[in-house]
Amino acid sequence: MFRPAIKVLDCSIRDGGLINKWQFSDEFVRQTYAACGAAGVDYFEIGYKASANLFDPKEYGKWRFCRDEDIQRALDGVEPRCKIACMVDIGRVEEADLLPQEKSPFSLIRVATYVKDIDKAIDLARLVQDKGYETCINIMAVSSNLEKDIDEALAQLAKTDVPSVYVVDSYGNMYSEDVTFLVKKYQQFLPGKTIGIHTHNNRQLAFANTIQAIIDGADFLDASVFGIGRGPGNCPLELLLGFLKNPKFNLRPILQLIQDHYLPLREKIEWGYLIPYAITGMLNEHPRTAIAWRNSKQRDDYTAFFDKLTTPEIVE
Amino acid sequence: MFRPAIKVLDCSIRDGGLINKWQFSDEFVRQTYAACGAAGVDYFEIGYKASANLFDPKEYGKWRFCRDEDIQRALDGVEPRCKIACMVDIGRVEEADLLPQEKSPFSLIRVATYVKDIDKAIDLARLVQDKGYETCINIMAVSSNLEKDIDEALAQLAKTDVPSVYVVDSYGNMYSEDVTFLVKKYQQFLPGKTIGIHTHNNRQLAFANTIQAIIDGADFLDASVFGIGRGPGNCPLELLLGFLKNPKFNLRPILQLIQDHYLPLREKIEWGYLIPYAITGMLNEHPRTAIAWRNSKQRDDYTAFFDKLTTPEIVE
Repeated sequence: MFRPAIKVLDCSIRDGGLINKWQFSDEFVRQTYAACGAAGVDYFEIGYKASANLFDPKEYGKWRFCRDEDIQRALDGVEPRCKIACMVDIGRVEEADLLPQEKSPFSLIRVATYVKDIDKAIDLARLVQDKGYETCINIMAVSSNLEKDIDEALAQLAKTDVPSVYVVDSYGNMYSEDVTFLVKKYQQFLPGKTIGIHTHNNRQLAFANTIQAIIDGADFLDASVFGIGRGPGNCPLELLLGFLKNPKFNLRPILQLIQDHYLPLREKIEWGYLIPYAITGMLNEHPRTAIAWRNSKQRDDYTAFFDKLTTPEIVE
Repeated sequence: MFRPAIKVLDCSIRDGGLINKWQFSDEFVRQTYAACGAAGVDYFEIGYKASANLFDPKEYGKWRFCRDEDIQRALDGVEPRCKIACMVDIGRVEEADLLPQEKSPFSLIRVATYVKDIDKAIDLARLVQDKGYETCINIMAVSSNLEKDIDEALAQLAKTDVPSVYVVDSYGNMYSEDVTFLVKKYQQFLPGKTIGIHTHNNRQLAFANTIQAIIDGADFLDASVFGIGRGPGNCPLELLLGFLKNPKFNLRPILQLIQDHYLPLREKIEWGYLIPYAITGMLNEHPRTAIAWRNSKQRDDYTAFFDKLTTPEIVE
């Protein structure tokens, strides 16, 4: 697939940090940034920007805070081939954390939201834009919403000048027909805006769903090196680059990065296709129960996990 | 997806045996057979039927030969809920190896072929049918053929009473649009015949491609427990059962089987998503070079493997 409008965003550090509280070394992040640049990746998302008083810096690495000066220092000297991005959560960032863009290493600040918080997300995106950054809104966990609520959120977004909106399969629950349904819906509500896709790999569908979104017209594509990301992880960047035919993309630097840095890391922290994540994906649930299970002594007792999640509880 | 015509075939032992020369214990095979039965799987493919003088029984396990008496003995006492299947290769089985079906534990004998050998495959399928077995023909490596040759093979098949023909993505090279193209083509050439799908997981597309084939009308579905199979393996049975809505299917016995038997096996032999297989998949090549690489000291030197396969050679 070659379409000049396609942009690839690497979210290895941001989404991968959800596994290890963003405790990546400067060297690891620099190597990832350099390889993404050499591979032709458009945006490098380096973490979440959050107020330092909300998380303990002893527990969380610097990519949880994304202070401008820390990022500048960490990437100093690496040839800047990708634009640098970060994500913000509603209520976890303050206006004072956002310098004017021209004083910041960040080009793009993405706003993550649930459908129910769309008005807050629009406010935050406006603030980001007013400071001079590119922005987009990532509507998380959309597979768990009623359609009327999705429609209402999209109608709100249509009235704004937020340029890009993402379909996010937070729970790894979507099939390609769901991707098509949502991408088409977003396009219908949001003419002129760019649609993005962010997938999770609970059922080994992250790459396939990303391809489907491309076919349907999504132009903003999230991926991560060797699929790193919370739980089962994301669409593997190496597979996506092997699919895209745009001559600017180059697979080899990512292969080198995997063998030098991501294989050793995978020995220490866990992500990828594991049965508990497949089960939460099938059930359209947040992976938190599966993550907790993988951290317990019962980590490989899949039937016990399955029984726990599928035994009916009294719900009224 | 619920469609009564859908049949699932487990190929764990047959395709998995390509990794370890079919050195599975009787107990392992019995447990897999029992779990597949409890899960509602329709066919259990237990190996290749081959003449004993072609392979050394000291090197190859009994599932390489599938002698009727060995299979009967191995499965004795397990409740027979799945039909038993095996595969035959052209030139590796003799008429004397095939008992009349009523004297054999096998219900289905599948014929594997390349496009170029289709006439031999039809002859062998006829022999199988004459002995009273169900049969089908699996056309391997179809992604590496010229379309005119595929068409010619299908035209030959159309003249036969072979009831089922498989689309086989031997190299893990297909995208869902390729699956659709081939399933539709097979349907067009072979009205009234059942179309099957057998995928490989080089690029984490085996499950997605199987779903696509189902949507396109394929009713014979191959899968394997935890995706076991040569190189990257096959469509994971547990994911397929989580997708199919036919009430007869039951995921839980397969989860139990994975935790009790397939996780320990995976510590000893290797299959699944590994970069060298992703590379051969992208390049539409047989996985043999990647398998050899994984057995070498350079197993995790992905760039060296990539360079070896992508450096132009003089070909005239």
